[in-house]
Amino acid sequence: MAQPFVTTHRVEFFETDLAGIVHFANYYRFMEMAEHSFFRSLGLKIHDTLPDGTVFGWPRVSATCSFNSPARYEDEVEIRVTVIRRTQRSLTTAYEFRRGDTLLATGEMKTAYCIVPADGKLQSADMPAEYFERLGRGLDTGGD
Amino acid sequence: MAQPFVTTHRVEFFETDLAGIVHFANYYRFMEMAEHSFFRSLGLKIHDTLPDGTVFGWPRVSATCSFNSPARYEDEVEIRVTVIRRTQRSLTTAYEFRRGDTLLATGEMKTAYCIVPADGKLQSADMPAEYFERLGRGLDTGGD
Amino acid sequence: MAQPFVTTHRVEFFETDLAGIVHFANYYRFMEMAEHSFFRSLGLKIHDTLPDGTVFGWPRVSATCSFNSPARYEDEVEIRVTVIRRTQRSLTTAYEFRRGDTLLATGEMKTAYCIVPADGKLQSADMPAEYFERLGRGLDTGGD
Amino acid sequence: MAQPFVTTHRVEFFETDLAGIVHFANYYRFMEMAEHSFFRSLGLKIHDTLPDGTVFGWPRVSATCSFNSPARYEDEVEIRVTVIRRTQRSLTTAYEFRRGDTLLATGEMKTAYCIVPADGKLQSADMPAEYFERLGRGLDTGGD
Repeated sequence: MAQPFVTTHRVEFFETDLAGIVHFANYYRFMEMAEHSFFRSLGLKIHDTLPDGTVFGWPRVSATCSFNSPARYEDEVEIRVTVIRRTQRSLTTAYEFRRGDTLLATGEMKTAYCIVPADGKLQSADMPAEYFERLGRGLDTGGD
Repeated sequence: MAQPFVTTHRVEFFETDLAGIVHFANYYRFMEMAEHSFFRSLGLKIHDTLPDGTVFGWPRVSATCSFNSPARYEDEVEIRVTVIRRTQRSLTTAYEFRRGDTLLATGEMKTAYCIVPADGKLQSADMPAEYFERLGRGLDTGGD
Repeated sequence: MAQPFVTTHRVEFFETDLAGIVHFANYYRFMEMAEHSFFRSLGLKIHDTLPDGTVFGWPRVSATCSFNSPARYEDEVEIRVTVIRRTQRSLTTAYEFRRGDTLLATGEMKTAYCIVPADGKLQSADMPAEYFERLGRGLDTGGD
Repeated sequence: MAQPFVTTHRVEFFETDLAGIVHFANYYRFMEMAEHSFFRSLGLKIHDTLPDGTVFGWPRVSATCSFNSPARYEDEVEIRVTVIRRTQRSLTTAYEFRRGDTLLATGEMKTAYCIVPADGKLQSADMPAEYFERLGRGLDTGGD
């Protein structure tokens, strides 16, 4: 089984709400922060221009999160990223948020590789070979 | 079939990202904005103190969103809220985001009625009768 | 004396922090919301492409805000915008935030008209004549 | 002259806007992030309960920022914090944002020590002695 990519985030004051806990919408930003760190760890880009001048990006297809226990100001939150599916055109990643032994939340995001033609309309495309290869390294094959 | 509650939001500049479109994490804020407007329309509160001094709130259990077409700066986005399930202790609402005839995104959120005892730990509880009754009015029973 | 442009904003749950009040950084977003509404009211754009293909925008030079009294969830905040200076290349606007008779905050922003050449580097430029003229209508000349 | 406290922040995707640069309102969050790291480095709290049960916090009096050069996605931004004034009841800190040799922005914030009585109304008060002493260590006295 592939090792998850792990990063941490210390909760900022402005991420809390009047209930005294992290506002739920921030977890989607935390997933993105972890996903982008994961891409950086693989030498990959979220938004860039290919040698032939094509601009590409990774817009979201869907994102979901379930909340088990609240996080609070200054908590050190550990975020684990696992690739759970990768096709030629998309990537699905899973997330676990923990504070010590406490599971705070779990989430999942599906992202599509897209190119941006001159007219600005996003268009699904096959990802470059090195993206397909490197993102596959983190793939959880359900094996040992 | 119950009529959905409808509200609108004009996309702000700070809600966009470098790809020129609304950043996906904002949709979860938009769902909350619509949900809270829906509560206000029913005379209900998201966070308040009961006559006996008990503080209550509606923390998130889960939230999901799927993205069909990007929204851009100054777009007028219509948000439709439908109650799809309501128990004594929780509420599940569905969301449709549209710009004219274009479906931008669909989402769903589950929220739990909780009281906050003196020790600050959220605790699931039966919602007050008027909450149960009024939230049921928006319930989509799949009927006519 | 010119009449200020007035808009309102109802405080959202996600704009509060654990102290139970609107987080101060949101006031800079509120100033932008009001400024952009003011531009729309004059038929002007914050980010657009001129007939000759030049892209322009209005990046910030500086922004300041002083906080008198906290705003809370669901408060209806009135925001008044006044033009206090306008040159060929920049605009300075002042803001007052009120809830009923209570002054919540006052702020000021200076913005520069810039064009974006092909290399992406922002470049200060003279604003189009209709911008200079229309923004001058809101100018507080200290007169009658 | 006192050494400034230095921290860094890598720009996140969701901190950019459609102009392709960091949205200006985020700089006020960055100042807070740096200020809170500075407090932590001194063993001080931004929001806590004193031994006698009094809750205290540090609401903003004012915050200002001037923008010299835009920051972009994935930039490593260095943030320097200097105490420029401290009284029994307030703290004024200055900020410099740099990417390598490039000055991105400078800012200043004034914060008041406040206690929160049972009625919830913030009330200015003298800060505890150890806050006064430790915050003074970072004070720029203009000396050598």
